[in-house]
Amino acid sequence: MKHLLLTKRKDDTQTVVPVGPVRFGQEFVVIAGPCSVESEEQTISTAQAVKARGAKMLRGGVFKPRTSPYAFQGLGLKGLKILAKAREETGLPIVTEVLDTRDVSWVAEYADMLQIGARNMQNFSLLKEVGKSGRPALLKRGMHSTIEEWLSAAEYILAEGNPNVVLCERGIRTFETYTRNTLDLNAVPAAKELTHLPVITDPSHGCGRISLIPAMCLASVAAGADGLIIEVHCDPEKALSDKDQALTPEIFGSMMSRISTVRACIEALP
Amino acid sequence: MKHLLLTKRKDDTQTVVPVGPVRFGQEFVVIAGPCSVESEEQTISTAQAVKARGAKMLRGGVFKPRTSPYAFQGLGLKGLKILAKAREETGLPIVTEVLDTRDVSWVAEYADMLQIGARNMQNFSLLKEVGKSGRPALLKRGMHSTIEEWLSAAEYILAEGNPNVVLCERGIRTFETYTRNTLDLNAVPAAKELTHLPVITDPSHGCGRISLIPAMCLASVAAGADGLIIEVHCDPEKALSDKDQALTPEIFGSMMSRISTVRACIEALP
Amino acid sequence: MKHLLLTKRKDDTQTVVPVGPVRFGQEFVVIAGPCSVESEEQTISTAQAVKARGAKMLRGGVFKPRTSPYAFQGLGLKGLKILAKAREETGLPIVTEVLDTRDVSWVAEYADMLQIGARNMQNFSLLKEVGKSGRPALLKRGMHSTIEEWLSAAEYILAEGNPNVVLCERGIRTFETYTRNTLDLNAVPAAKELTHLPVITDPSHGCGRISLIPAMCLASVAAGADGLIIEVHCDPEKALSDKDQALTPEIFGSMMSRISTVRACIEALP
Amino acid sequence: MKHLLLTKRKDDTQTVVPVGPVRFGQEFVVIAGPCSVESEEQTISTAQAVKARGAKMLRGGVFKPRTSPYAFQGLGLKGLKILAKAREETGLPIVTEVLDTRDVSWVAEYADMLQIGARNMQNFSLLKEVGKSGRPALLKRGMHSTIEEWLSAAEYILAEGNPNVVLCERGIRTFETYTRNTLDLNAVPAAKELTHLPVITDPSHGCGRISLIPAMCLASVAAGADGLIIEVHCDPEKALSDKDQALTPEIFGSMMSRISTVRACIEALP
Repeated sequence: MKHLLLTKRKDDTQTVVPVGPVRFGQEFVVIAGPCSVESEEQTISTAQAVKARGAKMLRGGVFKPRTSPYAFQGLGLKGLKILAKAREETGLPIVTEVLDTRDVSWVAEYADMLQIGARNMQNFSLLKEVGKSGRPALLKRGMHSTIEEWLSAAEYILAEGNPNVVLCERGIRTFETYTRNTLDLNAVPAAKELTHLPVITDPSHGCGRISLIPAMCLASVAAGADGLIIEVHCDPEKALSDKDQALTPEIFGSMMSRISTVRACIEALP
Repeated sequence: MKHLLLTKRKDDTQTVVPVGPVRFGQEFVVIAGPCSVESEEQTISTAQAVKARGAKMLRGGVFKPRTSPYAFQGLGLKGLKILAKAREETGLPIVTEVLDTRDVSWVAEYADMLQIGARNMQNFSLLKEVGKSGRPALLKRGMHSTIEEWLSAAEYILAEGNPNVVLCERGIRTFETYTRNTLDLNAVPAAKELTHLPVITDPSHGCGRISLIPAMCLASVAAGADGLIIEVHCDPEKALSDKDQALTPEIFGSMMSRISTVRACIEALP
Repeated sequence: MKHLLLTKRKDDTQTVVPVGPVRFGQEFVVIAGPCSVESEEQTISTAQAVKARGAKMLRGGVFKPRTSPYAFQGLGLKGLKILAKAREETGLPIVTEVLDTRDVSWVAEYADMLQIGARNMQNFSLLKEVGKSGRPALLKRGMHSTIEEWLSAAEYILAEGNPNVVLCERGIRTFETYTRNTLDLNAVPAAKELTHLPVITDPSHGCGRISLIPAMCLASVAAGADGLIIEVHCDPEKALSDKDQALTPEIFGSMMSRISTVRACIEALP
Repeated sequence: MKHLLLTKRKDDTQTVVPVGPVRFGQEFVVIAGPCSVESEEQTISTAQAVKARGAKMLRGGVFKPRTSPYAFQGLGLKGLKILAKAREETGLPIVTEVLDTRDVSWVAEYADMLQIGARNMQNFSLLKEVGKSGRPALLKRGMHSTIEEWLSAAEYILAEGNPNVVLCERGIRTFETYTRNTLDLNAVPAAKELTHLPVITDPSHGCGRISLIPAMCLASVAAGADGLIIEVHCDPEKALSDKDQALTPEIFGSMMSRISTVRACIEALP
């Protein structure tokens, strides 16, 4: 890989990406929340539940990239206002996915961090627009993208003068069908040896099975991830999307304490 | 698959997509031209060369989705004007890729058909905008997309009231490295048993090796494809992108006569 | 690829593999028959049916590589004797899969050609033993194997002094689930530009859906295949294995006449 | 998955697989050693080096499944005798791969555990023969095999009356090329929720890059693996096979102490 803005520096310093009070690359960051923002009540109660259990940021989709045009597409601006209210109530910075170049500037007024989803990882217009927005970006790896293509997508954002990119491994598509995708943890140490940007993982989408998420969260920590993004819903059975992979606050809570223990162990290694 | 606008009709009629004088689904359509529009001279001479050898439409990229932000990104509006001039000179309708929702309306003023590329197959905002544009759409299959997801992407366009969608299989990503992608010809009869939309293939991207393109063009015809899109450059060595897969006009010409022969044979089968 | 016994020769001559009266590489060879040999009646009636419709060889499994140890494993020696009887009745040479090095020598006494299945493509002991047997070999591509690995597997047989290897593309494993495997027709011209060995395809396993097999047979012919291997069962509903991909003799027959027409067209191309 | 011998038991007890003094499923087992047995000196010095650093078993190939027939194929019986001598010197039980049904009984006289490699995971004759041998088996997942197929392969061994099977995830084949394979850690908790058999991982083959192996070892521990198999060579530069993934004893040693720390942390979790 030739020298790019994202290439690991000679002095090995890692970029710290600030999102409100949060510092990716300096502290271990767990982002949690519902797949979709469905209502004020659902969003705020979930936000309070995840904050109480150690989450540092809130996630929630307001534009949903759905395979079918007839599936729930998200609440849009109304959803953003709900997210903003949840931030007000809890103090958690919010990250939300943006799908359309035309939405970037106004979504950036509400969100603390803009997510580029797996399906848009090579939507180069969107990458550039998020780069210009000045907002920190959470860049998911495409389900079909090599590590090199993923990093090149980050370079599109950096090249616009925006240094605040967090990479997120969220599972690649393979022949395996037991898991929804194959969370590729090899990509964590691989990305970290190539770039100075923080790298987190998304075991919720990576596995797509609740029973496997706790083990893959711990494995992500041990692989060197700088954080996690996890789907939590106060009532998963009623979720409008991704209900098979949303944790209850209770499971999330017990998982968080195990994550902390393992994280402390990993940090203390020589 | 549940009933959608694209679902095969009971009377088995196929949709005919008109693009200028061309009728996809009624005649076999070969689209040819350079990967990128590089100059007026290069574009017009290639257009004349492919027209003389039987191409019915001209392709040429003016916005190029490149892995690296530092690679040639296309000529934009200037390129569109060159394409329009090539149409004027040759009478060939033009198809060009559009990458950004904000560009759809003005690109639609120049192009006869809008292409949605593999990397944007699940850029749902773009699908909707192309649907609204009223222009016929050429929808490439994502390199990681199942046949069902590809058809669902087409449904996004149809659901906006635009019935003119042509599907294009362009190679999926597998473990094989001898070919750039794996052109999946199974997808041709599979798509044709599920939908009434025309289906063409793109052996240039599917193989990525000049030596394999002629055989895969003939195989596409035999598999039942309604057309082909092929990269041709009047001087491949000097191409600014994809030079390893661009045919010379001469090779294209000899291939076209073989394609016609096989196509006639296939059409005459009982 | 460095120079190997299988590397394409400078004078471009293709190896002709003789199996009884059949000449792979010289004539177009369709091998047909049931997935498994189930009974004398089923085998002989299928053999007669496929012979009457133009098949030149009979296929039939007597050792079945089944995912589960509790599934039907084949009739073994009893099945071989049935195949031999079918050959006697019809004159069709027989090909059957061998799974175990210990079986090669005695199976070779009954079979005219030994098949190495996809799951054993890198069972190097078996490759060597088939090489030593002196019998012509039908080498299927592994579902996870690159073209280069497939050719290297053939080299194992050639290196034992056995020049009679026919390569068979039978579908690779990808993320697509509509088809059982992805028949990779790119592998046909790719293999043929690298080696002088004949190359056939197996659309039955490649697609795994009866409705797609006819189109993929024609596409294989157009891609330059030297033959086909097709599952045909006189009563598919009662087949003990692979019943979703076995054709009736009637469908096989109408397909064969279309294959002949397209084959004649392809051969006559300049 | 229907009820099989390997299906997780109602009382959730895990099978303990004894190999000499080692107890898979009861203690965390690290197997280490060279890819190939090359000489007595190399094997014994590596064995002593890995024992001193905490390995509980010795690995070493004497039959090498090589893509090319002209690559080093292993020392065979001579190699087995070297392994036996290394066991004598160090007390470490030995595991070695067997490729051919005809070799199983005599290899079983030397080896404490028989490995079935990824390329032979669906060599059903070999699975049965190893089942009959009575020796514990180390069953690697095929690079193209689903978790369900991997477990079904284990069932072949169990069905012969041999309860001592250890599963080993060693990387699957995907489109990614930065890593040699994609070590699929999702398979660890997935296999452990489906079966009572121990599950270990092979980060050496899974990553194929020395720099990533330490992180993936820790991640394997955190994902719940019961052990690891790691390639160590006393002089990697001179290794006859897989030199890009063999660790020096020094790197192995520092990694082992980190593995122990993380393992203790994981075991102590509530």
